Amino acid sequence: MSKVKGSKAERELQKIFWQNGWACLRTAGSGSSSHPAPDLLAGNKIRRLAVECKATKSISKYLTKEEIGQLIEFAQVFGAEPWVAIRFDRDNWYFISPEDLKETNNNYLASLEIAKNKGLLFEEVIN
Amino acid sequence: MSKVKGSKAERELQKIFWQNGWACLRTAGSGSSSHPAPDLLAGNKIRRLAVECKATKSISKYLTKEEIGQLIEFAQVFGAEPWVAIRFDRDNWYFISPEDLKETNNNYLASLEIAKNKGLLFEEVIN
Repeated sequence: MSKVKGSKAERELQKIFWQNGWACLRTAGSGSSSHPAPDLLAGNKIRRLAVECKATKSISKYLTKEEIGQLIEFAQVFGAEPWVAIRFDRDNWYFISPEDLKETNNNYLASLEIAKNKGLLFEEVIN
Repeated sequence: MSKVKGSKAERELQKIFWQNGWACLRTAGSGSSSHPAPDLLAGNKIRRLAVECKATKSISKYLTKEEIGQLIEFAQVFGAEPWVAIRFDRDNWYFISPEDLKETNNNYLASLEIAKNKGLLFEEVIN
């Protein structure tokens, strides 16, 4: 996924958080910063969600071990829940816990099957 | 202050948060986003700080009413404390509560005098 498409997906999900009464910001330099950072950080007075955000036309998406490691590290230090938000082609956003991703040799795999079996929809993750 | 200098100040303060055991991220498109956003958001397991970040060679700095309004709005929805972090030339970072800024006709004024009288140093704001 290109950087531009990635930003578009992030902005789309950011907007949905705001429409549902959550604050949500996009991180500058996520993935290139010298400090760990999620793509999005959403919060309300009770919970904080650190979100790695992906959109794909395929039915599966690989995430690097570094991406997931940084997501978990940031979430631990900040005091947030780590989530991978992924939207497969023309489908809903699913929120998958990092521990439900399938570990491969060098990556983590998020598939539509995992999303449907173990992921949460937006309305579920915010409630 | 130019955008480049602004980013440099933000990165400097971001680094100090991490060095002190806090997570801190810089916001993409702060000031131009369609959603309110602080320059920085720092957090640990207990507290969250939404920070508007300024560095100046002068002894005073004006902030727009929109900047401060967005800072306060974001902080309220996210559940964070709003702070203006400002470093005057060759001095420490001071953290000023928005309510301690001096309101003028069209702006808010952060001065070195206000910072020294009412602001907190970094070590104070994180404790």
